[in-house]
Amino acid sequence: MTDAMMKPAPEAPGAIHSTFRVSRTYPQAPERVFKAFEDTDLVRRWRVEDENCKVLEFTYDFRVGGTEVSRFVFPGGPEIRLDAQFQDIVPNERIIFSYRMLAGSMLLSVSLSTIEIKRSGRGTDLIFTEQGVYFEGPDSAKNREEGTRFILEKLAKELAG
Amino acid sequence: MTDAMMKPAPEAPGAIHSTFRVSRTYPQAPERVFKAFEDTDLVRRWRVEDENCKVLEFTYDFRVGGTEVSRFVFPGGPEIRLDAQFQDIVPNERIIFSYRMLAGSMLLSVSLSTIEIKRSGRGTDLIFTEQGVYFEGPDSAKNREEGTRFILEKLAKELAG
Repeated sequence: MTDAMMKPAPEAPGAIHSTFRVSRTYPQAPERVFKAFEDTDLVRRWRVEDENCKVLEFTYDFRVGGTEVSRFVFPGGPEIRLDAQFQDIVPNERIIFSYRMLAGSMLLSVSLSTIEIKRSGRGTDLIFTEQGVYFEGPDSAKNREEGTRFILEKLAKELAG
Repeated sequence: MTDAMMKPAPEAPGAIHSTFRVSRTYPQAPERVFKAFEDTDLVRRWRVEDENCKVLEFTYDFRVGGTEVSRFVFPGGPEIRLDAQFQDIVPNERIIFSYRMLAGSMLLSVSLSTIEIKRSGRGTDLIFTEQGVYFEGPDSAKNREEGTRFILEKLAKELAG
């Protein structure tokens, strides 16, 4: 029996509650930034589509009480599923949504995200606050924060393009 | 012009992000505590009905992806509406739900709540964590925490009764 075999099986990680906030300034106006979250085709282009993954489903009903379902796979990976519910929408100012993420049948997280959009000179300050429950161990909130920075960088490219 | 008239109009309160946690021990077993959240008739009895308010609507679909709608009024007050979405259910262990509350057309809050149920001797420790976005000013998270303590006290009476 090797040392590795004698290690106890890792415990199923419990619920970790965490909050993070990411801010980003864009040179475009708030109306343009908001539109990138409002318009289904734009959302699909900049946020959902990715050369590394295959999109299996994307439905997006951007209104309070409406939902998003996104399903996609990375090569060799499990199906990733996102179920979101739009909770509050103030045009050009604020979007609040809850969402659940799964990898296969494994729950990764449940989150409440607030996007605040504020005019700043001729551009926009976007503040993304996520309050979440994470199930992938101690780094999972940190990883989600990095993922969010990546998404907001993709948005910068969409707005510039 | 009086001093009162010279005061600037109160600003519409912005989004306040806050997290609170309330713990409570019940002498009943986890299965009994969980059932009080699972069974529609029980939920209506201990949590929704109140001698001070009139229930206008209560629909409760306790499954992942299911929703709750509760509408009620206190005498002379606006209609209060709660829209909840069940995000995660582990029988006898955990319930995660998001919910939105309105008074009339005014959004009061959007929250993500985790109820953790843990066996403790012959009884149960219940840990209620709420991560929320509140719109009623600086005390709104504190008030919600007090409301949650009140609800968990109502549960104690239901379980004992």
